[in-house]
Amino acid sequence: MPLSEFALIERYFRGRGAKRADVRVGIGDDAALLECPPGLELVAATDTLVAGVHFPAGSPPASIGHRALAVNLSDLAAMGARPAWALLALTLPAADEAWLAEFAEGFSALARAHDVALVGGDTTSGPLCVTVQLLGHVPRAAALLRSGARPADLVFVSGTPGDAAGGLAVEQARLTAPSEVVTYLRKRFLFPAPRIALGESLRNYASACIDVSDGLLGDAGKLAHASGCGVELSFTDIPVSELLVRAVGEERARELALTGGDDYELCFTVRPSEVGRLRQELPPERWGYTHIGVMREASGAIVTRGGNVMEFSHSGFDHFGS
Amino acid sequence: MPLSEFALIERYFRGRGAKRADVRVGIGDDAALLECPPGLELVAATDTLVAGVHFPAGSPPASIGHRALAVNLSDLAAMGARPAWALLALTLPAADEAWLAEFAEGFSALARAHDVALVGGDTTSGPLCVTVQLLGHVPRAAALLRSGARPADLVFVSGTPGDAAGGLAVEQARLTAPSEVVTYLRKRFLFPAPRIALGESLRNYASACIDVSDGLLGDAGKLAHASGCGVELSFTDIPVSELLVRAVGEERARELALTGGDDYELCFTVRPSEVGRLRQELPPERWGYTHIGVMREASGAIVTRGGNVMEFSHSGFDHFGS
Repeated sequence: MPLSEFALIERYFRGRGAKRADVRVGIGDDAALLECPPGLELVAATDTLVAGVHFPAGSPPASIGHRALAVNLSDLAAMGARPAWALLALTLPAADEAWLAEFAEGFSALARAHDVALVGGDTTSGPLCVTVQLLGHVPRAAALLRSGARPADLVFVSGTPGDAAGGLAVEQARLTAPSEVVTYLRKRFLFPAPRIALGESLRNYASACIDVSDGLLGDAGKLAHASGCGVELSFTDIPVSELLVRAVGEERARELALTGGDDYELCFTVRPSEVGRLRQELPPERWGYTHIGVMREASGAIVTRGGNVMEFSHSGFDHFGS
Repeated sequence: MPLSEFALIERYFRGRGAKRADVRVGIGDDAALLECPPGLELVAATDTLVAGVHFPAGSPPASIGHRALAVNLSDLAAMGARPAWALLALTLPAADEAWLAEFAEGFSALARAHDVALVGGDTTSGPLCVTVQLLGHVPRAAALLRSGARPADLVFVSGTPGDAAGGLAVEQARLTAPSEVVTYLRKRFLFPAPRIALGESLRNYASACIDVSDGLLGDAGKLAHASGCGVELSFTDIPVSELLVRAVGEERARELALTGGDDYELCFTVRPSEVGRLRQELPPERWGYTHIGVMREASGAIVTRGGNVMEFSHSGFDHFGS
C-alpha cells in the first residue's frame, strides 16, 4: 500500500470508540499516554483474529471489528475487570474504504458501549489479521483468577453456549434452519456480547473464572487445572437456547455447548457457602447464569449423564462437516 | 495447528524476558495483572511486523523476535518512557521448534536488557505476523511529544541512520560489500538498538521527539507537522557511518539516512536556549547525537545543501533495485 493509504486508514480510527478523560495522548504520537487511577491494578489482554482461521474469509467487516474487540473484552470480563483503553493492530491486503468504514463502525460501536477509548494502533500491509490489545482496571487484589477454585465449589456458566458454533456452521453453509433460527445463530457468532457487567459483579462471589472461548468443557478443564483440581459437568444441566435446539436437537445442542467454541460466556465457580448469597444478590434469572457442575479432587474434566461418564472429542462442531 | 502445538508454543514464552515485582499475574490466566506505580503515566504502543513486508521472508528468527520488540521499544524511547511489560501476539504457519526457540531467545534477550517482562500473548495459526504491545511509564506530564517543537528549535538525530537500509539491501542481495561492512550493516538492520536511555535522558532537554522508523526526512516532517511548523535539514550534517560510506559512497549514504527507514534512532528538537545545557550535561560524543537542522515557520520538510533545496523521493533505498 502507498503511504497515503495508511494515512487514510488511520483517519478511520482517530477518535473512535469512547471519549475518556484519562487519555492524555491518544492516536497520533509514537505511543499513547494514559492516566492510571490510584488503588487499581492494570489488566492487559491481547487476542488475534486471522481471516480463514477465526472467521470465514468473507465475514461482514462490522462483525470482524466487533469480534476483534469482543474476544478481548471477554478476557477482561473473566478477570472481573472494567475495560478502558484499546490498541488496534490491523494488517490488511488493501485499503478498501467501504470495508474499513464498516470494520471501524463495528469496532467503535462495541467500544462505545463499554466506554473503551481507542488510543493507538498500527496499520500494515499483509494478509488480513487483527490484533487488539485491551487495557482495563480492577481493584487491588480483587481480580478473578482461574486458580481460585477448590473441590466442592459449584460451577456455573453464563448464557447459552453452543449458539456461536451453530452460527458459524450457518455461516459456513454446514447447517440450514428456519430463517428466525438462522438470524439468531448468526448474530450469536458474528456479534457476541462479552459479559463485562457479570464479570465485575462476580468479584464479590466467584472463587475462579474463565471465559468460554474454546468450548465449555475444555475451558472448564483449564480452570480446574489452574486450580489444581478437577471438574464434573452435568450434561442435562448445560443450558442451551431453544433456537439452537430447534436447529440441531437437544443432544447435539449440548454437545456444541460443551465443545463448540466462540461463545465468550463466563464459566465460574462459587464456594458452597456463598451460593445462597450469589443467588439472592445476583438472581440467575436476571443475570443469566446456570449451575452446571461441581469441582472435584480428581484432576480432569468430565461430563456425566445419569451417573455415567460421557466421552467427548474436542471437535463436536465438525459433525456438521462432510 | 492442533491444540497441543499451541500449548508447546506457549511454553516457549512463559517466564521469558525480565522478572519484575510489579507483575501480579503474567502469562497463563485470561489477562495479565500489573501494578501501576503512583505518580506515573502509563505509555502504550503497538507495532506489527509482517513477513515479506517488514522483514525478508527467510530472516533469522532471532532477528524477527528482536525487531518485533525493538520497534515498540523505540516508540517508547521517543516518548521518554521507561518500558515495563510486553504482550506478544504471534501468528505462525506451523510450530517449528527450532524457529520458535530462536525467535523466543531473540525477543527475550532484548526484553531482559531493558527490564521488560513478557506478561501475556496469543498464538494463532496463519501467515507469519508478529504484533507486540509494549507498556511503560513516564513521570506525569514529562513525556516527550511530537508536538512540542517551535520555529528556531535545533534538530538532532541519534546514531547513524541509513545503516539499516543498507543492511536490508544486503539481506535482499541488492548490495554487495566487503565482509566487515556486510557484517556491520546486517547487524544494524537485523538487531537495531532502541535508544531507551537517550529518550529518558532527553525528558529534561527536548521540546519534541519522534522515532526514526520510516526515514529521517519523513519522520522529521511528521514531527514538524505535529508541531505546526516546518523543518530544514542540512544534507552535509546528516551523520552517516564510515562503513555505510564505504559500501555506497557518502552521497548515497546520506540519501539512505534521509529516506531509508528501519533505523529506530531518535530525532528530537531543543530550544536554542537549552542547547548549551544539553551539550554540557549529555555530551554528544558520549550520547551519540548530531545537530542536523532547525525548525522553521514555513510548513514542510526540506533538505538544503550549500543554500539550495534538494529534491528527495521517499524511495531512496530502491536505487539499489534493478
